[in-house]
Amino acid sequence: MTSTPAPAPAATPGRDGTAALDSYRRAAIIGGGVIGISWAGLFLARGIDVVINDPRPDIEDLVRAGLDEITPALAALGLPTDHLTDGLRFEADLATAVADVDIVQENGPERLELKQQIWGTIERSAPAHALLATSTSSIPATAIAEALRHPERLVVGHPFNPPHLVPLVEIVPGRQTSPAVVERARAFYAALGKRPQVLRKEIPGFVANRLQSALFREAVSLVAQGVVTEQELDDIVTASIGLRWAVGGPFRTFHLGGGPEGLPHFIEHLGRAMATDMWPALGNPTFDDTTVATLVSQAREAFGDDTVAQLAAVRDRAQIALMRALGETPDANSGSAERA
Amino acid sequence: MTSTPAPAPAATPGRDGTAALDSYRRAAIIGGGVIGISWAGLFLARGIDVVINDPRPDIEDLVRAGLDEITPALAALGLPTDHLTDGLRFEADLATAVADVDIVQENGPERLELKQQIWGTIERSAPAHALLATSTSSIPATAIAEALRHPERLVVGHPFNPPHLVPLVEIVPGRQTSPAVVERARAFYAALGKRPQVLRKEIPGFVANRLQSALFREAVSLVAQGVVTEQELDDIVTASIGLRWAVGGPFRTFHLGGGPEGLPHFIEHLGRAMATDMWPALGNPTFDDTTVATLVSQAREAFGDDTVAQLAAVRDRAQIALMRALGETPDANSGSAERA
Repeated sequence: MTSTPAPAPAATPGRDGTAALDSYRRAAIIGGGVIGISWAGLFLARGIDVVINDPRPDIEDLVRAGLDEITPALAALGLPTDHLTDGLRFEADLATAVADVDIVQENGPERLELKQQIWGTIERSAPAHALLATSTSSIPATAIAEALRHPERLVVGHPFNPPHLVPLVEIVPGRQTSPAVVERARAFYAALGKRPQVLRKEIPGFVANRLQSALFREAVSLVAQGVVTEQELDDIVTASIGLRWAVGGPFRTFHLGGGPEGLPHFIEHLGRAMATDMWPALGNPTFDDTTVATLVSQAREAFGDDTVAQLAAVRDRAQIALMRALGETPDANSGSAERA
Repeated sequence: MTSTPAPAPAATPGRDGTAALDSYRRAAIIGGGVIGISWAGLFLARGIDVVINDPRPDIEDLVRAGLDEITPALAALGLPTDHLTDGLRFEADLATAVADVDIVQENGPERLELKQQIWGTIERSAPAHALLATSTSSIPATAIAEALRHPERLVVGHPFNPPHLVPLVEIVPGRQTSPAVVERARAFYAALGKRPQVLRKEIPGFVANRLQSALFREAVSLVAQGVVTEQELDDIVTASIGLRWAVGGPFRTFHLGGGPEGLPHFIEHLGRAMATDMWPALGNPTFDDTTVATLVSQAREAFGDDTVAQLAAVRDRAQIALMRALGETPDANSGSAERA
């Protein structure tokens, strides 16, 4: 526990109640890029003081501009944003930055040696009670923890970008991560209003990115073959599987699409046919020059002159409307729909 | 045009306006299974009289029970359901059933010879102006139309199940389907309130099912490997990519996830790595005995004692709430979110 009284406002209620957030008054965010800024905004809105550690000389300007950009989304989610940056500070020395925090969320470059070096310093300098989490999307905790004296302390807390908005956090224990740390991480992210999911095995890419990657391979193949354009494929997804999978995942969807006997019947009557007829026929595209030229040219047509930031703002508003409809926003006490 | 005055109420406004529905007063639904019932409910709610043709002796009971089951969803979508079955009748003789209709929507068994035989009869008996569409999910219009004297008349109008609820209709022209028929089909489904998408090439499984199948292959692989359970994987999808893809498809998602330069930057910096590192590492599962036993047992745990109908009703309510949030319900005049 920290020894000085924290000036931050009381944390707003999380989905698991406030208790789990009471012991988190100060957070260190290592790496102030897009992911770090998003975590920082969410932590601050939840009443957790944040210190940013990042070697870039202009980091304070970058982070403050980034926080300004995501503040409307935080407010739309129902989180308090009036004094968002009151608890924000910057510390260029890593050891000093983590010296008195309750949680370290690291978002550094995806290079194993660098992460091992960063985590060696964090382990030596952070309080013994601090929760130690890396946002890595590709490096197993087991590999990073080889450089640690206490590998049981490190866990992957991989958000689906951006963390202030998308509910998922994949918690991936390394071989030596202690079950108590896994449970603390789960409770912490849940109290932040996220939907954490603990994986049972380390696997490259974890789960969400592997699934996304599998669908994207076929998407690229279909566009490269000229079956549909990018815009048309996107429209097909939002009008069918996207809408479906926002309320029930693929197993539930097929359970409900297999008649009264559910998934077992689906597997026998449609799944086996899918495995023998469809899976071997799926595309195996490459990003050769022709394919890249097609994708780039169609992206220009599809997304026009709007900037990425403008398009993202529209998307984020739509996504928050969906979350609100599902009772999934952090402030939701009166969701209008049950989650399937 | 039909020669007798139609007693059906005037069609309610569709997304493309009412004009496109004015010339559709009577529809023949061939095959009164789950898909046929869903189409029938939607057509009736839109003020189109429906005649059901199906050889089963108990077809009338089946269809009326099925319509009772989907009526709450039709009402929740904002469609009028007070006198839903006033315009419903049954006709066991195929030639008679299609003799005076403006649209034939065929949902027979997925067997080429049978479909050729059915469509031969329809072509000989239906009015020359009737729109001829098959709901097939797997047989190309080109193959069915080989048995027709006027192959230019037939088009695939493949719904994503159930058609009264999921917006997508994939319109897939055969090699000889006339462009005028394709455009009539598009305008018709759009006027019904659907989001039709015309494909540019025939390909087995069309687009949505191929994409779904690609993701499901990796999903089965991850569960078979014990990385997550079915329930956990479903939760990961609804908390991340499902929510994303409900508001923007995979290309838009990566366009917005690649920094200010969008998709081209994504392809160079993440897409190429995905193609070389991730795609070759994706799973290639089979439905062997162990995998099937795992899937069946976890389905029992995940879905418990609720019936498929109960679970589907919950899912459908949630989906309608999402569609309403996106301004996507047929009655939407005041959608609260822009579609990305």
